[in-house]
Amino acid sequence: MKRKNVLRIAVLFFIGTCAALALSTPALALSTPALAQAKAQDSLPSWNEGPVKQAIVSFVQKVTDKSGPAYVPPAERIATFDQDGTLWVEQPLYAQGMFALDRVRELAPQHPEWKTTEPFKSVLSGDQAAMAKLTEQDWQRLIAATHAGMTTEAFLQIAREWLAHARHPRFQRPYTELVYQPMLEVMRYLRANGFKTYIVTGGGQEFVRVYGEQIYGVPPEQVVGSSIATRYEYQNGKPVLMRLPKVFFIDDHAGKAIGINLFIGRRPYAAFGNSGGDREMLEWTGAGGGARLMMLVLHDDPEREYAYGPAEGLPDTRVGKLSQALWDEATKRGWVVISMKKDFKRIFTWQ
Amino acid sequence: MKRKNVLRIAVLFFIGTCAALALSTPALALSTPALAQAKAQDSLPSWNEGPVKQAIVSFVQKVTDKSGPAYVPPAERIATFDQDGTLWVEQPLYAQGMFALDRVRELAPQHPEWKTTEPFKSVLSGDQAAMAKLTEQDWQRLIAATHAGMTTEAFLQIAREWLAHARHPRFQRPYTELVYQPMLEVMRYLRANGFKTYIVTGGGQEFVRVYGEQIYGVPPEQVVGSSIATRYEYQNGKPVLMRLPKVFFIDDHAGKAIGINLFIGRRPYAAFGNSGGDREMLEWTGAGGGARLMMLVLHDDPEREYAYGPAEGLPDTRVGKLSQALWDEATKRGWVVISMKKDFKRIFTWQ
Repeated sequence: MKRKNVLRIAVLFFIGTCAALALSTPALALSTPALAQAKAQDSLPSWNEGPVKQAIVSFVQKVTDKSGPAYVPPAERIATFDQDGTLWVEQPLYAQGMFALDRVRELAPQHPEWKTTEPFKSVLSGDQAAMAKLTEQDWQRLIAATHAGMTTEAFLQIAREWLAHARHPRFQRPYTELVYQPMLEVMRYLRANGFKTYIVTGGGQEFVRVYGEQIYGVPPEQVVGSSIATRYEYQNGKPVLMRLPKVFFIDDHAGKAIGINLFIGRRPYAAFGNSGGDREMLEWTGAGGGARLMMLVLHDDPEREYAYGPAEGLPDTRVGKLSQALWDEATKRGWVVISMKKDFKRIFTWQ
Repeated sequence: MKRKNVLRIAVLFFIGTCAALALSTPALALSTPALAQAKAQDSLPSWNEGPVKQAIVSFVQKVTDKSGPAYVPPAERIATFDQDGTLWVEQPLYAQGMFALDRVRELAPQHPEWKTTEPFKSVLSGDQAAMAKLTEQDWQRLIAATHAGMTTEAFLQIAREWLAHARHPRFQRPYTELVYQPMLEVMRYLRANGFKTYIVTGGGQEFVRVYGEQIYGVPPEQVVGSSIATRYEYQNGKPVLMRLPKVFFIDDHAGKAIGINLFIGRRPYAAFGNSGGDREMLEWTGAGGGARLMMLVLHDDPEREYAYGPAEGLPDTRVGKLSQALWDEATKRGWVVISMKKDFKRIFTWQ
């Protein structure tokens, strides 16, 4: 397992009480695609005008035009979204990674031996240099200690509580307020046009399900993610699912195409990502016939958010990035790159 | 892996062109639960009056009554159905098992060595006694030879074609016509009352997805089943998912509760099964709070269908059955047993 995957597993399973993020009314309750098309421009107010916004609108017009050659019946309208770095902030570390580290600190009093045992020692001492060198085995131990050995219900509750109180180190806001407003608008715009929107994340399925409905309007059954194995047991005569310290499925890279086939069983017509972990999802989507929309979010706005990835000479970092190779593939295959700096009029609801 | 599971894996992944089974119009397109309740009796015309039919109607009334204590918001209304023996005939062998045996016969000319190699030799010679003694390893070899080594698209096509032509040995009809009409009515009745209906089968997920929408009105993303591993590959520059001769997930027994949590992420309010493989699904459903409906189909009608299972002194068989232990648990936990003989006015649409 690659380091990134292990990191993502550390980010498995949950978030919570989540501030209500402008989900008060589904953007459009239109009865006909034609009407939806006419109002399309109004549905994406946080996007700057330009070819990227136009690509979204054109795609929706094509697949909803009953008389056109690219018409797609509503039942087949599937759109998949990566989460970390595509729908919300993933710097300086995935929220779920932050959760794992916080859990180590919280559980430390029950484990006095951690003070002298790696990888816990580095985490507890806040030794950033040492933490940057954690191995796969180290992360697996952190995950086992923080994400397993409890029932699914207990884990969801812990995740909910963490999300309610944790704050992002730079923005000093709950992680659930670090969702990209323009992407929320795309999700609602697609749903208003008959699409089912799915989150397809390398992060933990259970973790994302805690807040997916409230934050994104995506119900649990439309969250596809990485998972650990569970065991069916009885506690006081009542069945529970016990979380085991064992990876079951990694929904990243090729796993995203496999996961889409496994969980959805239909090929998406639109897919959104931001890193190499999304490459196969976009390829799988693009390999279908007819009109398809593949988009990549480029993080090129250090003032309002972050800048990372080698495209346009931006510095590389260890987490999800739009690499040069991915940029080249996007160009070759006609995928659309979203520049956060140029295309997002507003990034967060509170900005 | 148990013999039954291997058998079910042999039954993995598909069915096809499927005769249109009275799905012309969704039974009720009612706008309010109250209206749906008023018409409830009309929604289940193939059920005889009695406590079993009444249990279904009462449950729906309770969970849709906004002013009642057991009200369930529409988004949480999940109902899960086992397939083989619960929604359609599973005797004398699961349709997918029949498919595996037919595939061996079809592929035999390309494998002259099969004439002298077990387990293929027994299948090709039609030696029923030998076939009844096939081991787990034997079945795994049959599965590998018939269900793997091809892309998902190729498999779906093969499955579709088989379903279009295969006939049940006793009824001499396509398997897709051997669906229980009363159960179709329950599915439609629940959907008309805001439920999402899922198939949760020990059989192959891909196999059932081929015909699930046409036969049951259940789309691919609402079919949870057993699966084999797939690998993301490129063929002529285009990505494909190659089916590997390796089990990925067994959605049976405890796997049904695990699969429901994994794929749906919500606990069902209603669950329907017919055998020990459904026990944990019903337990998991019943362990939730509020009004829940757990039902078991008892096969006690040898004239119109089959009779098997030790309940009421019926003979046991090797496939799914309502065993004495399950019958006892049903009694203890308040699960409702459906007698096909007493409760089904009509079993098949063509009867």
